[in-house]
Amino acid sequence: MDDIDGYAPERLRHAPLTCVLHALALGRCSSEALTAACLDAIAADRDLNAWTWVDAQGAFAAARASDARRAEGRPLGRLDGVPMAIKDNIDVAGMPTSLGLAGREVVLARHDAAVVDRLRGAGAVLLGKTNLDEAVLGTIGRNPNFGNVGNPIHASRSAGGSSAGSAAAVAAGHAIAALGTDTMGSVRIPAAFCGLVGLKPTLGELPITGVAPALRRADVVGTLTRTVEDAGLLLALLAGRDTGATDPWQLRLPFAPPDWAPGELVAGVVTDLAGLGTDAEVVAAFQRAIEASVPAFGEIQPVTLELAPLELAHVRRAALLLMEAEILAAHGEGVAHGSERLRKLLDYARRKSAVDYAQADRLLDLHVTRVRGLFERFDVLLLPTVPLPPPALGCEEPASLADFTALASLAGCPALSLPLPGGSGLQLVGPPGSDLRLLELGEILQAMIDCPTE
Amino acid sequence: MDDIDGYAPERLRHAPLTCVLHALALGRCSSEALTAACLDAIAADRDLNAWTWVDAQGAFAAARASDARRAEGRPLGRLDGVPMAIKDNIDVAGMPTSLGLAGREVVLARHDAAVVDRLRGAGAVLLGKTNLDEAVLGTIGRNPNFGNVGNPIHASRSAGGSSAGSAAAVAAGHAIAALGTDTMGSVRIPAAFCGLVGLKPTLGELPITGVAPALRRADVVGTLTRTVEDAGLLLALLAGRDTGATDPWQLRLPFAPPDWAPGELVAGVVTDLAGLGTDAEVVAAFQRAIEASVPAFGEIQPVTLELAPLELAHVRRAALLLMEAEILAAHGEGVAHGSERLRKLLDYARRKSAVDYAQADRLLDLHVTRVRGLFERFDVLLLPTVPLPPPALGCEEPASLADFTALASLAGCPALSLPLPGGSGLQLVGPPGSDLRLLELGEILQAMIDCPTE
Repeated sequence: MDDIDGYAPERLRHAPLTCVLHALALGRCSSEALTAACLDAIAADRDLNAWTWVDAQGAFAAARASDARRAEGRPLGRLDGVPMAIKDNIDVAGMPTSLGLAGREVVLARHDAAVVDRLRGAGAVLLGKTNLDEAVLGTIGRNPNFGNVGNPIHASRSAGGSSAGSAAAVAAGHAIAALGTDTMGSVRIPAAFCGLVGLKPTLGELPITGVAPALRRADVVGTLTRTVEDAGLLLALLAGRDTGATDPWQLRLPFAPPDWAPGELVAGVVTDLAGLGTDAEVVAAFQRAIEASVPAFGEIQPVTLELAPLELAHVRRAALLLMEAEILAAHGEGVAHGSERLRKLLDYARRKSAVDYAQADRLLDLHVTRVRGLFERFDVLLLPTVPLPPPALGCEEPASLADFTALASLAGCPALSLPLPGGSGLQLVGPPGSDLRLLELGEILQAMIDCPTE
Repeated sequence: MDDIDGYAPERLRHAPLTCVLHALALGRCSSEALTAACLDAIAADRDLNAWTWVDAQGAFAAARASDARRAEGRPLGRLDGVPMAIKDNIDVAGMPTSLGLAGREVVLARHDAAVVDRLRGAGAVLLGKTNLDEAVLGTIGRNPNFGNVGNPIHASRSAGGSSAGSAAAVAAGHAIAALGTDTMGSVRIPAAFCGLVGLKPTLGELPITGVAPALRRADVVGTLTRTVEDAGLLLALLAGRDTGATDPWQLRLPFAPPDWAPGELVAGVVTDLAGLGTDAEVVAAFQRAIEASVPAFGEIQPVTLELAPLELAHVRRAALLLMEAEILAAHGEGVAHGSERLRKLLDYARRKSAVDYAQADRLLDLHVTRVRGLFERFDVLLLPTVPLPPPALGCEEPASLADFTALASLAGCPALSLPLPGGSGLQLVGPPGSDLRLLELGEILQAMIDCPTE
């Protein structure tokens, strides 16, 4: 952003949020011009299938209002005029919430989700809703109703999922940042595949009101951004539960201050990657990143994850059963019109008994214990975000894609994914409440390793 | 306890915990003599079926060790030498944990439950394990394996359940105080029926490690005592989660200080009692208690509970489904040998689907919201503990017995039951974390109303 051309809307739409805020504050670019550039790009990239709903009229009105406030020297908040994308399982007032299902366009949400309310209150321009795996049940952005989401930086590859459109939109420069949701990895997987930073905060720290339930014991709102700094900026705006929160899972655990002394940190590094079915290129990219980040740590300990009877695949199946049952319980009517694949998935939950559910729930409780116990030995766990590189667009979904991300999700731990070359990611996982510490460490590592976004 | 006879073991075994501690500290009674009096009473009252396991040898050894410590002026802790009873779904090292099921006597627990460890660490003499409804699934102390628990103060009546034996043991003077567990009312129902004070703390405040799971989103350890003061003394010893706690439900919410100004308190009093199927005598006893306690409050507001679709019966059925499924998941093998009634109950959960479970779970989430929302209007909710007086021993179980107690349980709220004449109870419910406030108010009310224990 050194030269004046950096402020041109066509370049700025690809810039980090912090740069965009700088440009808007200095008056080097108007929100209206930036919003127009984003909307033009959305229209030009229609075959990415990144969006389920675009509200050009509303976005322009919001952008002009923002420019008027800026002209008066009274910006509304820290995001005033910034074009943003919202995953289509999060309510935005006046737009439908499709969940990626057909036939739901007629019902417009009456209220903003609590997180959206906070973005709007800070002045963000809400461009529309982004595409996702049907009923959020997927990891590759496959959607029979809105089309499969393409990957803007790895052509003919999947964008990852389920926050596929949010990631594609940011990677393609349709929006400066996006909200996604992450239940088993749905923010971090597409972040890695699309070369972005994905943050999944501690369970319960961001309000979940107005977000379609998938698996309440793991559902969180997360961010897709171009830098760690951007993720930190959004987290500060979004964190803190809403007073109307109703969910017993949403119990507050205050963030620890960002006070890690990097040179004294003990990192646990997952070493049994080949045994876990990790692709050789992913292993190589991960090992290069670990080697480059050695100076950031006081000590690095090897960690093996695969311990019967809690192997990742068992945990995955248990979580999927709960998720499918909860989705059916919450959205029963809506998902009845889903694709044959979706109906088959959900029929599985219909055939399982209440006792099977309770058993799966108990297995996840053991998982919580086990993962949280890891942090008695070290401060931060490092592992790849996804075991495989982005699969070909439209291919069969690899069953293990979410195994490395579900680990943190199901334990309620915060996790941050930094982009690595080739569409893989370096994942940092900390104990619950360590979000600010992870971000601080992430900023340091992002500067040390070969991060494609920087 | 004014006269010297009050210190005789035969009288002291019926005294409040605070009096017993006084007698032991002054040396007016030895722990051995008191323990002997308790064990004699247990043997004499065998037909109460209050116990599943009595460890006379261990109790005597602990009592003598306590007396030796007292003689040296070095008591171990605040309960040194006090004979106590533990419900038989809580692990005590060296004793079996039957859950009220047959055929489990051969397996002795290797470790104390965390709450038992705290009692033992404070010097308590653990007499044995108390009888309960089979697999904790009941509210009237019915047990085909260890006999139905009798009521020491209302002859030929049920002692209530499922912590039936703990209540009967304290009411009969077998033990000075007892631990129970309360998932939908299992401490408060027998407390009311047996003329005791029953405390169900805020969900998650007492460690649950070593307690057989029934419904983890509601399971808590509670106390059965003769006075509110005694309950407060035990709460102070037991509160605070253990560092090894593994359960994601066990998230800490610190207790608010006991700072209620009674004259300024707003009480919500449940008024639609007849519509809720409450017995006329129970209504009368409750209304007399409310009238007597009017001076304790600044304002009294009427509250109606029955609002579709969240009627108490729906909530009850949802909670029972989850509880049955969890019990099967946790204790599948053990309950296979249960009675026909138990197998029928549990088969219900086997026939229900995972989606039914998720739906029930969602209904309970709504219940949490609704009950917690009540405390925006007032400080404390007052309602009867049980809608009916103690039913005849061996009768069919009335379906609604736990409806008034489950209200607080399923919302994670603390609740205190004070005994009223005729085996009914006055229940005080507060928002999560208000345990100390409830105890303070309970002490005031206990002095104002006609409390049979005082």
